[in-house]
Amino acid sequence: MIKREDREKRRGLLIDITGPGKGKTTSALGTCLRALGWNWKVAVIQFIKDDSETGERRFAAASGLPFEICSMGAGFTWRKDGNSNEDTLCAENAWQKAGEYLTEGRVDLLVLDEFNIALDKKYLPLDQVIATLRGRPSWMHVIITGRNAPPALIEACDLVSEIREIKHPFNAGISAQKGIEF
Amino acid sequence: MIKREDREKRRGLLIDITGPGKGKTTSALGTCLRALGWNWKVAVIQFIKDDSETGERRFAAASGLPFEICSMGAGFTWRKDGNSNEDTLCAENAWQKAGEYLTEGRVDLLVLDEFNIALDKKYLPLDQVIATLRGRPSWMHVIITGRNAPPALIEACDLVSEIREIKHPFNAGISAQKGIEF
Repeated sequence: MIKREDREKRRGLLIDITGPGKGKTTSALGTCLRALGWNWKVAVIQFIKDDSETGERRFAAASGLPFEICSMGAGFTWRKDGNSNEDTLCAENAWQKAGEYLTEGRVDLLVLDEFNIALDKKYLPLDQVIATLRGRPSWMHVIITGRNAPPALIEACDLVSEIREIKHPFNAGISAQKGIEF
Repeated sequence: MIKREDREKRRGLLIDITGPGKGKTTSALGTCLRALGWNWKVAVIQFIKDDSETGERRFAAASGLPFEICSMGAGFTWRKDGNSNEDTLCAENAWQKAGEYLTEGRVDLLVLDEFNIALDKKYLPLDQVIATLRGRPSWMHVIITGRNAPPALIEACDLVSEIREIKHPFNAGISAQKGIEF
């Protein structure tokens, strides 16, 4: 169990992992693994992504650890024929869920996966989002992932990393593989 | 269990995560979590890093999953009074261990953490290292992390990501924290 003192001396960080390269969600999942090693409670709310079978969802379901993944998107719809109303509705629902975790302090580490995209596409009001993030318990770490982090969000963050692609196997004709891309 | 067919159709990737930003080891750990969700066998061999208590080592020890971490470095010694002989010896030992995993195909995913640093510092012969990496089983994924990936290694890789620092809390006077940095 986590001691109250442990939380009291913790300085919760707001972290953003952005950029066009591979490994943003993966990096957040690595922090989840590390946090679980310290017996923290962890949740991932996935924007944009739907509930397709992934290694991380299988892991969360089977682990028996305090680790939940809620996948609340409609998929990367704008790559096909996107329905923008549906995307906005999904983002609103996911953000409502995230808001509960943030205000109630349900977990030590909350990952808002692909949230940068939902904000960049203006599915949600950025000012209110930042205010809610800032109002979270002082000991709660939040990691936001996705391309195109909005500048105002970067401004509000404690730590921002950008991942760039130097070389990608898709360019060499190798397609997405289980265990690596999902 | 992993079916033989699953391995037969897999195209093992050689991945390098480099750059000065935060999240290289973390990203590799995220792939470990994902791989464990697919019931893969996973090992992490840590160069440079010693066996200090970290979230990932605690996780591996407690998880009961096919996930091992061997931390075989002497610490980031050149930041203090470094003993270069000791560093070279540690790297040689860690690489010998890695070689066993690579040639015997012991795991589906092998992470060589901070290995870029050991190669950049010429603790090991790069040509032989690349030949051994290339000779591994075709279904084995390998992820190498650390700053300063040597160009010849990048050339040999299928996927290379670079992490850049946009904003870092150390610059704002916040020190390394459990669960985030380790």
